[in-house]
Amino acid sequence: MHWISFIDYSGTFVFAISGMMAAVDKKFDLFGVIILGMVTAIGGGTLRDLLIGSTPVAWMSTDVYVYIILSALPFCYFFSSQIRNLRRSIFLFDTLGIGLFTILGLEKTLEYGLSPLVAVMMGITSAVFGGVIRDVLSNEIPLIFRREVYAFACLFGALVYLGAIQFLPKNISSGLSIACVILVRVLAIRKKWRIPFVD
Amino acid sequence: MHWISFIDYSGTFVFAISGMMAAVDKKFDLFGVIILGMVTAIGGGTLRDLLIGSTPVAWMSTDVYVYIILSALPFCYFFSSQIRNLRRSIFLFDTLGIGLFTILGLEKTLEYGLSPLVAVMMGITSAVFGGVIRDVLSNEIPLIFRREVYAFACLFGALVYLGAIQFLPKNISSGLSIACVILVRVLAIRKKWRIPFVD
Amino acid sequence: MHWISFIDYSGTFVFAISGMMAAVDKKFDLFGVIILGMVTAIGGGTLRDLLIGSTPVAWMSTDVYVYIILSALPFCYFFSSQIRNLRRSIFLFDTLGIGLFTILGLEKTLEYGLSPLVAVMMGITSAVFGGVIRDVLSNEIPLIFRREVYAFACLFGALVYLGAIQFLPKNISSGLSIACVILVRVLAIRKKWRIPFVD
Repeated sequence: MHWISFIDYSGTFVFAISGMMAAVDKKFDLFGVIILGMVTAIGGGTLRDLLIGSTPVAWMSTDVYVYIILSALPFCYFFSSQIRNLRRSIFLFDTLGIGLFTILGLEKTLEYGLSPLVAVMMGITSAVFGGVIRDVLSNEIPLIFRREVYAFACLFGALVYLGAIQFLPKNISSGLSIACVILVRVLAIRKKWRIPFVD
Repeated sequence: MHWISFIDYSGTFVFAISGMMAAVDKKFDLFGVIILGMVTAIGGGTLRDLLIGSTPVAWMSTDVYVYIILSALPFCYFFSSQIRNLRRSIFLFDTLGIGLFTILGLEKTLEYGLSPLVAVMMGITSAVFGGVIRDVLSNEIPLIFRREVYAFACLFGALVYLGAIQFLPKNISSGLSIACVILVRVLAIRKKWRIPFVD
Repeated sequence: MHWISFIDYSGTFVFAISGMMAAVDKKFDLFGVIILGMVTAIGGGTLRDLLIGSTPVAWMSTDVYVYIILSALPFCYFFSSQIRNLRRSIFLFDTLGIGLFTILGLEKTLEYGLSPLVAVMMGITSAVFGGVIRDVLSNEIPLIFRREVYAFACLFGALVYLGAIQFLPKNISSGLSIACVILVRVLAIRKKWRIPFVD
């Protein structure tokens, strides 16, 4: 398996777990857990595809994403308490995921002939809007509006990618950009970075 | 009128009433009542059409759905207290509606060349997402995430349809599938079925 | 600059400010403020474009809307307290904005071959759904469902436009219709009009 597919699939899996665990916390029933897992994992890319006019939306072209998401279900059922202790691994794959989804979203938007500015916005949308829809469906204010530098890590990664691609091949630019997303996010947590607008 | 159109229109009407009554409970004004009725009645099919790339979305091709929804308005105004007592009739048409919408959504998705798995998901989406959007706009956690076997009745109906269509004509497969949706939902309420994920 | 572009841009700017100030009230961070400004300014037109099948959605075809929205950011940062006192100016441009967005949405929908009834609905959607999405993302019940004659001003403007366009050139019909939107909204506030559905 290509390393890009590996990150894509594991990112999808970890996003699904994040949605399902939010549903478990809210005591949703089986259907609610599945829907919240789906929406979190594929919501961002779906919104991007709708906006740029790429339909049927990407995940529909193959059943593999649906199976990956469904495979997170027994995992959440049997290991829900252990998952809380797997924070480090989840954090790693989640961050790899947002990094990759940012670049894939950016690339796809450029392929549709849209401007780099719009492409950066769609990259970030791909990475973060699944979580926004998860929070809206759980009747919560979206987490990333208040406490996370999540979106700024994506923005930084997108800009690095747009710069690197001028000189370097795609593969290396992608790797570099994902590394930057991880770096920003780890630093942000270590140093307790916050970006308040007004105090 | 063909029996499919009859179920389609009466399902739309009953969905509109469910949205409008939710708006009445929240003391929305006239515009809020209309919007919530619209969104509940056509939201699921609209989301399905957006995702599979069938635009303009289906209800726009004719004014009849808008008129059906608007005709629910005086009904809710003059008979809002009686509607509470019409539970059985509303339950019947609502269940007929979700059964039919599931099949129509499934069929349309298959016609777009998408997989049976995706078609089943889009069938369920057509039937239940109007109610999800209604609840999100009312600032409530979607009902079906917590207490209803609604979605599983649709899933069961979709599977029965996919099986039956191998041997039987469409009309009969549809009728059989809708009957199964009704059966599951009635049993679920009688027997107080619940499908918790974790207790 | 054509007067239509002037209203379009200043309407977008004022819509962005309304979204950003809602985010400031909720103590969102920088990213939350930007997203809420974006969504409020372009959400209505985006939803219209998705529904009628005009993708990539309109604001993506040029970067100018994104820049207008971002330019509202320093304005909200440095003048957040003064903005509260600029109510009259904001109200004026906001009302000009909804009037114009209603007509532009209506026109575009007609150009897509859809019925006048659908066109009126899409005109209103263009004008008011940015605010609805803003409220949903802020975890509030949409304001216009409860207290505003906002949507009815748009409906009235749309009907005036559809009538006027039979006899008058587009430019004059647009101006007349926008004037009616302003009139209805000012009267509504002066006379404290409300349109409750049930008391």
